[in-house]
Amino acid sequence: MAKNTYMRWRLPLVCLLWEVAMIVLFGVFVRFGAEADAHWEEEKREMNLTSDIENDFYFRYPSFQDVHVMIFVGFGFLMTFLKRYGFGAVGFNFLLAAFGIQWALLMQGWFHSFKDGKILIGVENLINADFCVGSVCIAFGAILGKTSPIQLLVMTLFQVTLFSVNEYILLNLLHVKDAGGSMTIHTFGAYFGLTVTRVLYRPNLEQSKDKQGSVYHSDLFAMIGTLYLWMYWPSFNSAISDHGDAQHRSAINTYCSLAACVLTTMAFSSMLQKKGKLDMVHIQNATLAGGVAVGTSAEMMLTPYGSLIVGSVSGIVSTVGYVYFTPFLESRLHIQDTCGIHNLHAMPGLIGGIVGAITAAAATEDVYGKEGFIKAFDFTGVYRTRTPSIQGGFQAAGIVVSLLMAFVGGAIVGGILKLPIWGDAAAENCFEDDVYWEVPEDEESDAYHMHNPDKPASP
Amino acid sequence: MAKNTYMRWRLPLVCLLWEVAMIVLFGVFVRFGAEADAHWEEEKREMNLTSDIENDFYFRYPSFQDVHVMIFVGFGFLMTFLKRYGFGAVGFNFLLAAFGIQWALLMQGWFHSFKDGKILIGVENLINADFCVGSVCIAFGAILGKTSPIQLLVMTLFQVTLFSVNEYILLNLLHVKDAGGSMTIHTFGAYFGLTVTRVLYRPNLEQSKDKQGSVYHSDLFAMIGTLYLWMYWPSFNSAISDHGDAQHRSAINTYCSLAACVLTTMAFSSMLQKKGKLDMVHIQNATLAGGVAVGTSAEMMLTPYGSLIVGSVSGIVSTVGYVYFTPFLESRLHIQDTCGIHNLHAMPGLIGGIVGAITAAAATEDVYGKEGFIKAFDFTGVYRTRTPSIQGGFQAAGIVVSLLMAFVGGAIVGGILKLPIWGDAAAENCFEDDVYWEVPEDEESDAYHMHNPDKPASP
Amino acid sequence: MAKNTYMRWRLPLVCLLWEVAMIVLFGVFVRFGAEADAHWEEEKREMNLTSDIENDFYFRYPSFQDVHVMIFVGFGFLMTFLKRYGFGAVGFNFLLAAFGIQWALLMQGWFHSFKDGKILIGVENLINADFCVGSVCIAFGAILGKTSPIQLLVMTLFQVTLFSVNEYILLNLLHVKDAGGSMTIHTFGAYFGLTVTRVLYRPNLEQSKDKQGSVYHSDLFAMIGTLYLWMYWPSFNSAISDHGDAQHRSAINTYCSLAACVLTTMAFSSMLQKKGKLDMVHIQNATLAGGVAVGTSAEMMLTPYGSLIVGSVSGIVSTVGYVYFTPFLESRLHIQDTCGIHNLHAMPGLIGGIVGAITAAAATEDVYGKEGFIKAFDFTGVYRTRTPSIQGGFQAAGIVVSLLMAFVGGAIVGGILKLPIWGDAAAENCFEDDVYWEVPEDEESDAYHMHNPDKPASP
Repeated sequence: MAKNTYMRWRLPLVCLLWEVAMIVLFGVFVRFGAEADAHWEEEKREMNLTSDIENDFYFRYPSFQDVHVMIFVGFGFLMTFLKRYGFGAVGFNFLLAAFGIQWALLMQGWFHSFKDGKILIGVENLINADFCVGSVCIAFGAILGKTSPIQLLVMTLFQVTLFSVNEYILLNLLHVKDAGGSMTIHTFGAYFGLTVTRVLYRPNLEQSKDKQGSVYHSDLFAMIGTLYLWMYWPSFNSAISDHGDAQHRSAINTYCSLAACVLTTMAFSSMLQKKGKLDMVHIQNATLAGGVAVGTSAEMMLTPYGSLIVGSVSGIVSTVGYVYFTPFLESRLHIQDTCGIHNLHAMPGLIGGIVGAITAAAATEDVYGKEGFIKAFDFTGVYRTRTPSIQGGFQAAGIVVSLLMAFVGGAIVGGILKLPIWGDAAAENCFEDDVYWEVPEDEESDAYHMHNPDKPASP
Repeated sequence: MAKNTYMRWRLPLVCLLWEVAMIVLFGVFVRFGAEADAHWEEEKREMNLTSDIENDFYFRYPSFQDVHVMIFVGFGFLMTFLKRYGFGAVGFNFLLAAFGIQWALLMQGWFHSFKDGKILIGVENLINADFCVGSVCIAFGAILGKTSPIQLLVMTLFQVTLFSVNEYILLNLLHVKDAGGSMTIHTFGAYFGLTVTRVLYRPNLEQSKDKQGSVYHSDLFAMIGTLYLWMYWPSFNSAISDHGDAQHRSAINTYCSLAACVLTTMAFSSMLQKKGKLDMVHIQNATLAGGVAVGTSAEMMLTPYGSLIVGSVSGIVSTVGYVYFTPFLESRLHIQDTCGIHNLHAMPGLIGGIVGAITAAAATEDVYGKEGFIKAFDFTGVYRTRTPSIQGGFQAAGIVVSLLMAFVGGAIVGGILKLPIWGDAAAENCFEDDVYWEVPEDEESDAYHMHNPDKPASP
Repeated sequence: MAKNTYMRWRLPLVCLLWEVAMIVLFGVFVRFGAEADAHWEEEKREMNLTSDIENDFYFRYPSFQDVHVMIFVGFGFLMTFLKRYGFGAVGFNFLLAAFGIQWALLMQGWFHSFKDGKILIGVENLINADFCVGSVCIAFGAILGKTSPIQLLVMTLFQVTLFSVNEYILLNLLHVKDAGGSMTIHTFGAYFGLTVTRVLYRPNLEQSKDKQGSVYHSDLFAMIGTLYLWMYWPSFNSAISDHGDAQHRSAINTYCSLAACVLTTMAFSSMLQKKGKLDMVHIQNATLAGGVAVGTSAEMMLTPYGSLIVGSVSGIVSTVGYVYFTPFLESRLHIQDTCGIHNLHAMPGLIGGIVGAITAAAATEDVYGKEGFIKAFDFTGVYRTRTPSIQGGFQAAGIVVSLLMAFVGGAIVGGILKLPIWGDAAAENCFEDDVYWEVPEDEESDAYHMHNPDKPASP
């Protein structure tokens, strides 16, 4: 079953046309927000600010850069664990994220930063664009090694769109809190990706089974991704929280949750293998579940010990998922999940949504202070009569909406990606960089010379 | 001499029980500090702050993240230089640090942030916890490749405890300044680790000599660790200094010291090899000695040229150490120091303590300004009559106390780790990931096929 | 043609003598600036600042650290793509940058921070020193693999000097804006390096052709460099912009330009190869051209869509350069450009200078606001009568001056480096770490055993 994976005209065409579209749309719509505009001096007086340091840039830029690293190095290198798909992992992640952030600036801008016909952007928009693309990187994890770059760009286009709609429903219509994106990023992104990979099910994927594993150094490259995700996750969950205590608290809660998660992951990784040895797949992935699982509640008064509990539980759930659920999903439900995003993002994302709903429902003026209570949940304007338990209900509704959007959206987009025009590889060529990349000859020639010891090495 | 390295029940048990203990203790003791608590709005008025930007979070969070990277990527990857111990280097460092920061939040909290029966934490506590764990990562460098993960966890438990006691004696009882931890982190951590490795002396370690070296790519992985430690060290030494000029000055001094250190390291690395070639071991390690050696004095008025001198000297001492002292320590004193922490942390740490004592003793109101002088050394309350020379004396006493704590503590903890119940590997299996990790088959199979050129490569 | 590459006395001598010179010069000249000095408390009152957070440290330190990572990890790892020159790439970059920042602190200090016989330094000086060294790292890219460490140090000494003179002419005499250094860093650095490599032309370089390529994992190491440069470039271009809106705007413009650049690079990489496959050389390099090309204009009101256009164009120009210009430069003009800096820095740098001139010339009070207009271009004092179009003319003059300085300086320095006393390797030993580094035996022994399958692997 030879497939046409020739990209020479298709990929350039998509990239160039879409970039032109971005330029036109940015030209029509996107302008600098007040804090990035040269009129800032006058603006500052109006906003009654005494110093340049109160520009939102200084509140959020360090967190933005950490998030930026998570998207490009974190996700990119996490997926280099495959022995022969490192270029695709890092390179396609780079491509889809670079396109995705442009489209996300527009989509999210229309929904959230639209004023007098213009989208006004600042550092918070850059963070939100990175967040939005994060959900695409997650979905990419499910289909890693099995799709063409064009399919990835098409998926990005649709997923960013759906993400923005879902985010609008949650944040604006349901008035849900989700600063770290347990629901909007992880639950939505993961179930979207799992639905897409289900639709794209490849019955003959065992033909490339020898390429689905890692080699020693590819596992170390993946650990670069893991550690940057793990270290910067406190920045991720606090990046768009309210200035002051909320950002501070989000970082602490996330730090605690992640620390606990490492211990339970190591425990279960050893416990669930007959020989008691640790498995790099678990260390690379399940140690991060703690960050996902406090995504909604980190900015709330979850407390450090609450964070330890959530982190511990999510590490266990995630590791168990790798050992038992992933094989089950593949064999019974025909869901081929290359990176195991079901364990790292889907289940911990659900936990995060639920913990967020409970934490919100349990909020009291006593715990938050009178002002803090109103500020934390934005109980102002039409929402000033909302009670914590009602907020908890809306939070729960946010999970359901995210799931529905993911399933329906994923099914439709999966259907589109199944069209035989996108240049994906045949089953036996999956997980192989050689299909879309110029690959240096080292390993081939090594293998060749191993079998032909009389020939000289390299030309 | 077959040893039982089976971890299946022991490691999970330790991880899970200890994590439960953390949850209980956090539940009883740990709460958000004022600047991370939702009552902040009211607090802010009381503290007379005009803007959220004056929350300590914005003074320290960027430095915190840099320190965080140093602990997990810096130390983790620095130790991946061994050809077959990359998983253990990064993975066990990850495990012990994730446990250590939880326990450090408690221990340091009881000593320094305890109020009305609660430990109140903020971003500065997170930094201090990372610092404390840094001393464990240093000790880990001495025993790298020779211990089981359980031994590492046990060592972490005790070392964090002793670190906190030592830190309390230095900072609170002796009123010593040590913002970058030349004494508390490096001197203590290194001599502690060296004592432990002395007690755990393995006479037959040459059985695994072929695995103690590096390969080409493992040396490049290690350089990732080196560079992140080197680049972020200015953040390390300035992270908990006073707001304003002290943080600013610490960063500049450290930047200068590290720059000078690179040149003298390169010079001596070439000079001390017969063929005049540079040795990656020196570049990976001795270039960092300049950061260690200004750990105490960086926030003082050491001046940029003073920093260059300290950095130059420490680079020389450290490189000479690798060439002459490490073999001597092993052959004569039976101190097997895998990463050469004696050269990177112990000697430069001592230099740092001494330079700090001298710089403090030489302080004058003229150099610091009247207010700056009092602020820099906290000569307030019961300490308002302290003179610089007395402060210098107390600084020197801090070195001695740290050494004593390290030797006595290291001997006891080494004794505990010698018990034959922790599952460490036999001498011939040291420096080998295969003992505790599921290792992908690449290298074995390569080796196999090299000797059996007729068999096809990988199944 | 055996050459003497023995470094044992030459390299240590240069390193040590120069470091001593640095210490003496720092001792005579360099002191802490007001914001890093312990007199800050009094200074603060004089400067009428209300809080420590207004110390310049908090405005610029996060950006400084990002720039620092770009210089040491970004440039260092970007150049590890060669299969056998990873140590030299990372290690020599480390050496020259560590020396260069010290010398740059002095040179730039004399020109810009000299007061009452002293150079007063703060975080902005550290950033500028890193910037200056950035131009040396760029030039290093052209001669990578072909020079001895001493040649690199000599080049650094001269290039930093010339950089500082050129920068002084542009910023102070021509009153040109160039915050991200399209002209001062990239145009100057690249054409300087290209001139040097032209003078050092090696007619027999094809003798080491087998070592000029990459291997699979070296390409992944290089991607670490690429991504850190790409992600932190917004910090690079905004690091020394005015506080407030200018820093904010620079980051946004750079973010947009880089995102667009990725798409056009991927498009042309695929389009220009017969088989339509993506080439890692392009992804590693041309994706960064967008950052270079907005270096001058990022802090101006370039607007997000303007940035997309500049980024798109520069990605195309750079990729086309790799495919067509680099071979042409080598075969016709005898310019051997190892990393293709002509495509990544020279041409995009020129684009950046031109875009900057146009953007400046097109500035109006309407777009910038009355105050913003004056602040953005510093139209105060003797420059208060400058019009945008005159400013545009001076910007264009800045490009010409930078080019002249690069060509003349590069020719002279190239001549000096051609002297047969610096210990460079023979043509057949270029691109080979073994010349200057102790290299672990893995690959040699592998190759050996491949041809001698009966011998046991490793001693």
